[in-house]
Amino acid sequence: MYRYNFASYLRDEQVKIESVDLFYLAMPKIEDIGDGSQDALLVRIRAGNWEGWGECEAAPLVSIASWCCPMSHVACKPVSASVIGQRLEDPSDIAAIHKHVLANSFDLLQADHTLSGIDAALWDLLGKRLSAPVWSLLGCRKAFPKQPYASVLFGADPQETFSKGRAAISEGYRAVKFGWGPFGAGTAAEDQEHLRGAREGIGVDATLLVDAGAVWDEDVVRAKAVVPALRSVSATWFEEPFASEALHAYSELHAQAPDIKLAGGEGCHNHYLARLMIDHAGVSFIQIDAGRIGGITSARQVALYARQKGITFVNHTFTSHLALSASLQPFADHEEDRLCEYPVELKALARDLVLEPISRDHNGEVRVPDTPGLGVQVNLDTVRRYLVDAEISVGNRIVYRTPSV
Amino acid sequence: MYRYNFASYLRDEQVKIESVDLFYLAMPKIEDIGDGSQDALLVRIRAGNWEGWGECEAAPLVSIASWCCPMSHVACKPVSASVIGQRLEDPSDIAAIHKHVLANSFDLLQADHTLSGIDAALWDLLGKRLSAPVWSLLGCRKAFPKQPYASVLFGADPQETFSKGRAAISEGYRAVKFGWGPFGAGTAAEDQEHLRGAREGIGVDATLLVDAGAVWDEDVVRAKAVVPALRSVSATWFEEPFASEALHAYSELHAQAPDIKLAGGEGCHNHYLARLMIDHAGVSFIQIDAGRIGGITSARQVALYARQKGITFVNHTFTSHLALSASLQPFADHEEDRLCEYPVELKALARDLVLEPISRDHNGEVRVPDTPGLGVQVNLDTVRRYLVDAEISVGNRIVYRTPSV
Repeated sequence: MYRYNFASYLRDEQVKIESVDLFYLAMPKIEDIGDGSQDALLVRIRAGNWEGWGECEAAPLVSIASWCCPMSHVACKPVSASVIGQRLEDPSDIAAIHKHVLANSFDLLQADHTLSGIDAALWDLLGKRLSAPVWSLLGCRKAFPKQPYASVLFGADPQETFSKGRAAISEGYRAVKFGWGPFGAGTAAEDQEHLRGAREGIGVDATLLVDAGAVWDEDVVRAKAVVPALRSVSATWFEEPFASEALHAYSELHAQAPDIKLAGGEGCHNHYLARLMIDHAGVSFIQIDAGRIGGITSARQVALYARQKGITFVNHTFTSHLALSASLQPFADHEEDRLCEYPVELKALARDLVLEPISRDHNGEVRVPDTPGLGVQVNLDTVRRYLVDAEISVGNRIVYRTPSV
Repeated sequence: MYRYNFASYLRDEQVKIESVDLFYLAMPKIEDIGDGSQDALLVRIRAGNWEGWGECEAAPLVSIASWCCPMSHVACKPVSASVIGQRLEDPSDIAAIHKHVLANSFDLLQADHTLSGIDAALWDLLGKRLSAPVWSLLGCRKAFPKQPYASVLFGADPQETFSKGRAAISEGYRAVKFGWGPFGAGTAAEDQEHLRGAREGIGVDATLLVDAGAVWDEDVVRAKAVVPALRSVSATWFEEPFASEALHAYSELHAQAPDIKLAGGEGCHNHYLARLMIDHAGVSFIQIDAGRIGGITSARQVALYARQKGITFVNHTFTSHLALSASLQPFADHEEDRLCEYPVELKALARDLVLEPISRDHNGEVRVPDTPGLGVQVNLDTVRRYLVDAEISVGNRIVYRTPSV
């Protein structure tokens, strides 16, 4: 399945993971809004003469703690215990690291989020070393272009929502997703006004996607109240009306309004949870963030399972283009899964994190990089600019200190 | 439903949560074994003139970080943001805090584990203030005695497993659970020898429970290989053959060997996951740790749902009797759910954490305390003896420092 004969390529070397550095970046001011690009946890891994980068879509300090905490017992070890010193010569080594983390840290809840950035950095490193894009190492024969949807927050009022939609279309997007903000917090009538603003802003031809941001927990009645409005604006999907794991509520809404296509999955922190969602929630779209689900490895497992089940896979990305690249790799070869999330309201730290962003081409499409690794280069000046000094000590031992860039 | 008229009882006061202190305790040496009693995260909450205590069954440092980390965005706030300053006058206030945490921290994976100890401390405080045991505040009219099973690790070899079984019986237990250790790591034949040792050790009349410690991930074939041995020793349940969320594997094993009663659920970190397990895994027993699932509140939700579905609820407890009391409250009124987990190999810090343990009575049964709150008193000398000094700083600000006892 793989294009490379790893065993022969690397016969004479034994590359091991030598260092893992975690960098906590943050904007000077964090706003109380649904914008995940305000801070970041970057991972840099070194092995042999190579270096790989990844990003965790997770609370930076908590993920750092799960990397460096003391062991609690056999199945509650820090993530570092399963990574440092491990062999890294071919994709099976990354799979082995996943198995180690699962066995050594399954009682450490945050571990999945931490592993996500590490996994991406491992793939980036391996790709660079083997001069191959990550998607090819995953077994994809070809990477198909995706149609990006602009992912924006609902405006403070329907007029602002309208303006945001208009702006996205004027920038050439043919699909726009509105989410979070005031949506769902007031009445269904207010939601309807926002939806109308969104549709009028983007025009009749564009694809409209709606994200409720898990606002209704498990309240099917409240979610169902916006169904007529969703129909009237021809929303392509209805995302996360409920809490991530409230699959009974998804399933019930699906049964009551089967024409409304449900989307969800960004909260899945391992591939089993995504599988449960595919099997039991009645969703049409499964949205996976490689920065949360355990990395590219786990996201690829979900992509393959979704394809087998006839469910459309979509990336979830609301942070940097390093994260975007990681989240695009797992379904690069799914020609029929056309849409991809493309964040357009990034804060400076996320926007400037890579030297060359993954731009839209002349057709307005997004191509997964075909250069080695994740195909994006981290801008070290940006890392230095937003780097947060943090230190953790336990007993009299410092277990974490912000590393030098 | 409640026995108290909270509104009139408290009319003239407005009690708010004033302080939450987290204490990281650890044995001087942590062994690489399946014993969760080697460290602990204690929570002390103060409000008005009252004090409540709880325990998180979780990596202490990581849970501390999720309490005090800076906000990342609207749905990734530290748990403290939803707790400090909140009203605490009746059970509905605890439910409100749960809603806050769900809304404010649903992208912070570790939050559920942290909330667990906080929730227990809130109930303990409320119970003391209202002079009522927690179970009565949960709506239980009566607390029925439970039959404790001794929870021990498999021995290093079948002979040691035999001896451990014999010892448990000689201490008066009529049910013994063996788990973890070498079980599942070798061949099915080796597992069979351990099971035989266990049954011979406890004798033909005692209840034998078997815990595979999630050793086989999702490998149904490997799990099925021990089914004949489980039958031959008449195991009452077969616990956690698979990863916590690999419900398809549970369901498949259940279909292939419906006479083997499956148990699982200790990994559930919210009530939705437990509901999924009840609905889709084919388990007969749902095992909930109040120190992980989001506290007594969430565990009670699971207990009620399990009863509705005809599934037996059992506590999961492998730590102190403070945690034991918290885990017993949610199903105190389930007369038919007889078994309770009762840890018997506790390390000193867990064993000595309360002044008076929850002992077995003359019938060998365990009674949920009927004294106010959780009904156990924390031994402050033990807290001081095993207290770990920890400090976390972000930017130039110290966000956590071990509080004084």
